[in-house]
Amino acid sequence: MTDRPHTPLLDTVQSPADMKNLSNRKLQQLADEVRSETISAVSVTGGHLGAGLGVVEMTVALHAVFDTPRDKIIWDVSHQCYPHKILTGRRDRIRTLRQKDGLSGFTKRSESPYDPFGAAHSSTSISAALGFAVARDLGGDVGDAVAIIGDGSLSAGMAYEALNNAGHLGKRLIVILNDNEMSIAPPTGAMSSYLSRLYAGAPFQDLKAAAKGAVSFLPPPLREGAKRAKDMLKHMTVGGTLFEELGFSYVGPIDGHDMDQLMAVLRTVKDRADGPILIHAITTKGKGFAPAETAADKGHARGKFDVVTGEVQKAKSNAPSYTSVFANALIALADTDSRICAITAAMPDGTGLDKFMKRYASRCFDVGIAEQHAVTFAAGLAAGGMKPFCALYSTFLQRGYDQVVHDVALQRLPVRFAIDRAGLVGADGATHAGSFDVAFLANLPGIVVMAASDEAELVRMVATAAAHDSGPIAFRFPRGEGVGVEMPSNPQPLEIGKGRMIQEGSGVAILSFGTRLSEVQTAAEALSARGITPTIADARFAKPLDRDMILQLAADHDALITIEEGAVGGFGSHVAQLLSDEGVFDKGLKFRSMCLPDTFIDQSSPADMYAMAGLNAEDIEAKVLEVMGVEVISKRA
Amino acid sequence: MTDRPHTPLLDTVQSPADMKNLSNRKLQQLADEVRSETISAVSVTGGHLGAGLGVVEMTVALHAVFDTPRDKIIWDVSHQCYPHKILTGRRDRIRTLRQKDGLSGFTKRSESPYDPFGAAHSSTSISAALGFAVARDLGGDVGDAVAIIGDGSLSAGMAYEALNNAGHLGKRLIVILNDNEMSIAPPTGAMSSYLSRLYAGAPFQDLKAAAKGAVSFLPPPLREGAKRAKDMLKHMTVGGTLFEELGFSYVGPIDGHDMDQLMAVLRTVKDRADGPILIHAITTKGKGFAPAETAADKGHARGKFDVVTGEVQKAKSNAPSYTSVFANALIALADTDSRICAITAAMPDGTGLDKFMKRYASRCFDVGIAEQHAVTFAAGLAAGGMKPFCALYSTFLQRGYDQVVHDVALQRLPVRFAIDRAGLVGADGATHAGSFDVAFLANLPGIVVMAASDEAELVRMVATAAAHDSGPIAFRFPRGEGVGVEMPSNPQPLEIGKGRMIQEGSGVAILSFGTRLSEVQTAAEALSARGITPTIADARFAKPLDRDMILQLAADHDALITIEEGAVGGFGSHVAQLLSDEGVFDKGLKFRSMCLPDTFIDQSSPADMYAMAGLNAEDIEAKVLEVMGVEVISKRA
Repeated sequence: MTDRPHTPLLDTVQSPADMKNLSNRKLQQLADEVRSETISAVSVTGGHLGAGLGVVEMTVALHAVFDTPRDKIIWDVSHQCYPHKILTGRRDRIRTLRQKDGLSGFTKRSESPYDPFGAAHSSTSISAALGFAVARDLGGDVGDAVAIIGDGSLSAGMAYEALNNAGHLGKRLIVILNDNEMSIAPPTGAMSSYLSRLYAGAPFQDLKAAAKGAVSFLPPPLREGAKRAKDMLKHMTVGGTLFEELGFSYVGPIDGHDMDQLMAVLRTVKDRADGPILIHAITTKGKGFAPAETAADKGHARGKFDVVTGEVQKAKSNAPSYTSVFANALIALADTDSRICAITAAMPDGTGLDKFMKRYASRCFDVGIAEQHAVTFAAGLAAGGMKPFCALYSTFLQRGYDQVVHDVALQRLPVRFAIDRAGLVGADGATHAGSFDVAFLANLPGIVVMAASDEAELVRMVATAAAHDSGPIAFRFPRGEGVGVEMPSNPQPLEIGKGRMIQEGSGVAILSFGTRLSEVQTAAEALSARGITPTIADARFAKPLDRDMILQLAADHDALITIEEGAVGGFGSHVAQLLSDEGVFDKGLKFRSMCLPDTFIDQSSPADMYAMAGLNAEDIEAKVLEVMGVEVISKRA
Repeated sequence: MTDRPHTPLLDTVQSPADMKNLSNRKLQQLADEVRSETISAVSVTGGHLGAGLGVVEMTVALHAVFDTPRDKIIWDVSHQCYPHKILTGRRDRIRTLRQKDGLSGFTKRSESPYDPFGAAHSSTSISAALGFAVARDLGGDVGDAVAIIGDGSLSAGMAYEALNNAGHLGKRLIVILNDNEMSIAPPTGAMSSYLSRLYAGAPFQDLKAAAKGAVSFLPPPLREGAKRAKDMLKHMTVGGTLFEELGFSYVGPIDGHDMDQLMAVLRTVKDRADGPILIHAITTKGKGFAPAETAADKGHARGKFDVVTGEVQKAKSNAPSYTSVFANALIALADTDSRICAITAAMPDGTGLDKFMKRYASRCFDVGIAEQHAVTFAAGLAAGGMKPFCALYSTFLQRGYDQVVHDVALQRLPVRFAIDRAGLVGADGATHAGSFDVAFLANLPGIVVMAASDEAELVRMVATAAAHDSGPIAFRFPRGEGVGVEMPSNPQPLEIGKGRMIQEGSGVAILSFGTRLSEVQTAAEALSARGITPTIADARFAKPLDRDMILQLAADHDALITIEEGAVGGFGSHVAQLLSDEGVFDKGLKFRSMCLPDTFIDQSSPADMYAMAGLNAEDIEAKVLEVMGVEVISKRA
């Protein structure tokens, strides 16, 4: 917490209003200080570093030119918003980023009026900005709408849909393409190549000169009153046909770290734009912090680190992460089955598929931030005889939901869904929670839905998915490390729809789906001190349910408690449906379904978040005592 | 059924193999006969007419050139597949289209090996075709992959994602852009304008000449062996920079009704393509049937009609459709509230918003087939102070699911979702069923989810949604006519989370969510003959539940039965969660949840489909008798 950077100018800026009369030279000084403050803050909080460092100058220039918060600045994904937060009244809390009760790592409407539209998933900014622009033109109290979107985010169809609609409507709307040739992973896709060609055709130094020329005849206030923006901006333009074809005026490419260029272009656009404009700015992810600039991922997301060396403090781990367990298991299977292939939507590192890609480049596909396409592409592969594993985070699978229903489930195509980050995820908070996948998948006819209770089970489920060729199958697993169990040396496929007994007991049966199992076991230990021995079972399958096991548990016990890391509508609801269909409730079974509560849970450690959700060992213990009618004093206030 | 067209050549074609040696002139004759057969068939079945008539020549040419079914022809949406079905062994059943136990109105894998990938939702074909192409290059037993996609479908982001990925991978892949300047509605969006410019710049007759020239030096087998396809195809190309920028070779525009052009281009492409190619074909929707060509919707979808006059047999209706009730209610509210605006994703007619658009053009937005953008654009409008109504079919809302979660619910933005075609929809079959919306919406924190039990309730729910400004709200209603109830003259907003009692009874309570209420009432009439009077309530809300009413019903009755037009995980599951949380099951309540079964239900009349689902009056009656322990002999075999 010591070692704060020297920031004399930043110290005088309480809000964007304090930036309005600064010279470009002073604005650059401010940017330098914001950059130092950002590095210092992330060194103690961890988080997304590279993206923020890449837009420091742009952030300063935007707040200097635009009238925020009446003008709406909408950061796509918004992991690059730390400099923006520093400049918009949140500097005093910047070292609480991504911590419990601290600032969100993303923009958030409830946090500040300077965050007009929250984000965390990619490619939403142009749609939202267009909404603001239209609301303004319908009489709303809104000024300009500015979306800042990365080149990676442009690979998503949603961004194209928004460009297509905005180009058609012709409203005044400003889109800044923040092109750093990087999303989380190196760029992929034809659009990315196109963007590269755009500025490869225009040597950078020439542009700098051109922009400086523009500056010289465009000091604020602008001298040329009557000339339309388009004519003027054309002089700064060297390409961009594709965007022009979609109805946008294209400006660029410009140097996104050159304050003179930024201020000249933004002032001109602010003064003259009369329709949709796309400003193509070239930036460097991790700019100004050597350890980030030289890293393979450009300092995308990192733990706490040393400000001088950039060295990251690594947390000690006792067990491998679920992600790496999945990836290694899949690679092992691919070694002997050439039909296995893998698909990621711009997350080769996050899903562990980077390893698969190194080994089997021709069988691994990074389709870009394009979950809709990812799912149907996988369906096509399956229809063509391959065994595709579509590896997506639970929260991002929401992007491909219709494709799961319409292209996969309806056709019973054997696409394998490896659903990472299931359940609550920690510092990324509510936007990344994997809460809904079981509910939105398990009611699809013909699908198989599994959850791994530990890393050994995950390996078995990967084998099960590979062997299951008669229809779609999904397995979910959480963020973080496994529990340290012994791994099967020769994992065999599970029998579809069969759970496993963990502990025989009496009175109460606890039926767990997923990694709450270890909490259940902890609760059982505490209960044993009271002479209570609940039966414990690992359901393994939310679909098809292990009917025999569940009905037997219901018959043999007074109470049945289900627990899962997901929202209502999922595993517990399917068990309830079975019990009601079979008339089990008629006999007075004490049934309880423990699932995520009806609230979005803000960032904290996963354990804290599960405490808030009421799904930790002590909550399970309390639930067992409640159904047994044992009065206890709550451990919580 | 009489009045079959004279089709001597078609009568000799049992499968595409019989077309291989036909001359272009003969192929045109075959196309003419297929066109007559299509018109004749749809005149007795109803269905999508215009789209099929627009691709008759293309269908014939594709099967003449490509080696189906090893080559994969993938029709986007596939409502244009009737000519394809006629030519691929299904002519004998073509007059069962969209009927119970008949041919699907879409391509369907289970129906024919010539349907390698089923569809019904738009813009999936390029992703699927790319999957086949990659599977082929990985050693699968697949030939060419050909996607035929309409210009309307190109407005969807998913199509762009697929183009972007295909352009990057560079695999041999053939995309035919079937450009008829029409999706269901007149085209919208910048891409559409771009396509128009492409062929506006190239007079049609010149292209015909160019293509004929190509034919003259390219009879099969092609003479020029060594020359690469790209060089050759360039001579037929007059534009298409945008597609070229995305990594595709662009060929066109060509006349999609000129067999000579089609055959020359397809043969050349088949012989020479070495990467992704886009063929831009201009066609006329409804081609060759004057009543369709001149209709505003180009004969998109229609009921049974007279082959000579084109006059459609109108079914008599006793009550207004839910769709028109919604639209009229919204217009009435918009008359007095300038903040109300409306959004459709390329379905102005289907959602009834065409009327709204005529009255308030500046407040009504057709964003194209772009549900992801539609939802987040609505979120932006809401954040900008408007009251957006996002009108989507239940099945298409699946396309914008992540946006509902991430952009609307998480931010508690007051977007109003008008969910049409909720429940089973009839002739469009399983692909269009609105089965899952309650399950995937009602577990989102902070959302309100309603279902109208009749058209008067729908009007009240539109008013409720307009008045609800504190967060998102959704109301669902089915396809088809209302039940003929009296309409409220001055509809007032409902109290959020309050249901209504319909009938006080004893023993069994039936809690209905949605339009099954009339079936419940019919069942109650039958039960009254047995001296049984169930209590009946209309839940109105799946979220928030009317806790007081539900717990009171549970307390006052031996049995509680919920019923809904949706899959497990929805209304009944939420009621079960409440009952379990409150310990109601402990006392032996006979709880039953009647919902859609775990199967995709093929097309039929909605009443038939609900019979298959077990959700009609007789099923309700049987369920009541079952929980009461009354033995009855089933009415069904």
